[in-house]
Amino acid sequence: MTYCLGIYLKEGLVFASDSRTNAGVDHIATFRKMTIFEKVGQRVYFLLSAGNLGTSQAVVNHLTRNLGDKTSSINLYATKNMFEAAEMIGDVLRDVHAKHGDHVRAAHADPGADFLFGGQVKGGKHRLFHIYSAGNFIEASPETPCLQIGETKYGKPILDRVITHNLALENAVKVTFLSFDATMRSNLSVGLPMDIATYREGKLKVDRHVVVTEADQYHAEIRRNYNSGLIELFRSLPTPPWLS
Amino acid sequence: MTYCLGIYLKEGLVFASDSRTNAGVDHIATFRKMTIFEKVGQRVYFLLSAGNLGTSQAVVNHLTRNLGDKTSSINLYATKNMFEAAEMIGDVLRDVHAKHGDHVRAAHADPGADFLFGGQVKGGKHRLFHIYSAGNFIEASPETPCLQIGETKYGKPILDRVITHNLALENAVKVTFLSFDATMRSNLSVGLPMDIATYREGKLKVDRHVVVTEADQYHAEIRRNYNSGLIELFRSLPTPPWLS
Repeated sequence: MTYCLGIYLKEGLVFASDSRTNAGVDHIATFRKMTIFEKVGQRVYFLLSAGNLGTSQAVVNHLTRNLGDKTSSINLYATKNMFEAAEMIGDVLRDVHAKHGDHVRAAHADPGADFLFGGQVKGGKHRLFHIYSAGNFIEASPETPCLQIGETKYGKPILDRVITHNLALENAVKVTFLSFDATMRSNLSVGLPMDIATYREGKLKVDRHVVVTEADQYHAEIRRNYNSGLIELFRSLPTPPWLS
Repeated sequence: MTYCLGIYLKEGLVFASDSRTNAGVDHIATFRKMTIFEKVGQRVYFLLSAGNLGTSQAVVNHLTRNLGDKTSSINLYATKNMFEAAEMIGDVLRDVHAKHGDHVRAAHADPGADFLFGGQVKGGKHRLFHIYSAGNFIEASPETPCLQIGETKYGKPILDRVITHNLALENAVKVTFLSFDATMRSNLSVGLPMDIATYREGKLKVDRHVVVTEADQYHAEIRRNYNSGLIELFRSLPTPPWLS
């Protein structure tokens, strides 16, 4: 299972993905689910995937091998804006489904894969999309700043409480840790390492890209402090009057 | 959508269910999803349902109309213990599926319904089961004290953090409010009123049964205090060192 999160802020973008791939009970493998395409000063793309690993890796490979090839129709660096780039990814995804979909379904597996795609192209705004397995997509907005794919529900309540479009990027990263912590506690098939990347609006280069492993001190600390703080908060709340 | 929760404690049992039924976009109706069967001093059963409302209401009706009828093979008051009672409910559920299942599927709907079933029969222990739509079931244990059906994921992280088999019943009720709050914030199709019932081990009668509506002061207070406490806790946590 996978959990990927994208947050659309006034200040920029935050992306996070776990890297656990679950293929059956006794085989849990680790794969990167975040791909970053960067041409400093020109454009930056962040692409995160959840779902069938064959499908998502095929899409990433098609996009990567043609990058910068001016003769190719699927050169992500040739698109005029984020919308065109999202459309191109949707088209590649449809091509992959056309080639492999029926064969995967014949093997009783689901070829579906979803993507989060965000970034900025020079001259345009920073944007964030959820590209569905069908190849169509929706865009994050100030009213709906968080997009999630994969195992989304466990980590949603804390986002709903805290995230707004105007939140400072640092704080959005903090919530990201908490949202992943909730997910990893409730679903063992989502696990570390976790990729976190941040982008600051207008910079046209990656701000930070960090791989959080079990050895990460900040992760251990926020996880511990949040849990003990929550339990303390819980204790401080009154019990129902009809029980006392 | 529905969310139902059952908690198996050393001290007893806690049950909670919302009462929102979602049949299409513009029609959200309210139905009770908790049925209590009580024969004071002899036995108490709590039955909660999620899934197809036709199926779950049919099961409850079959169980209710034969209650105490010594000539009927599906008299819940004639079972020797909780296990036999759970088996009887599974059998009734299979009968309902046999009669209606194909017709419901032909109308492109899912006839599936899951149940939480718990209580105590004189001479036995208090027990809690999840009866699957297939009619088979699993039992809660000290290691796995929480069973959930319906929209289960949003409300699970707080349970995972706080609930243990040895938790005081009052505190388990408090967590129940928080678990439902998280669910109702993240999924509008789960909503008040909420039924909460408690059972104290060995008492062979209902401890408390409360219907929590929008007017409930405790609900409003714990919801508000938990949210502001969480946001305060969130603010108190440090941001990642690599961002500052």
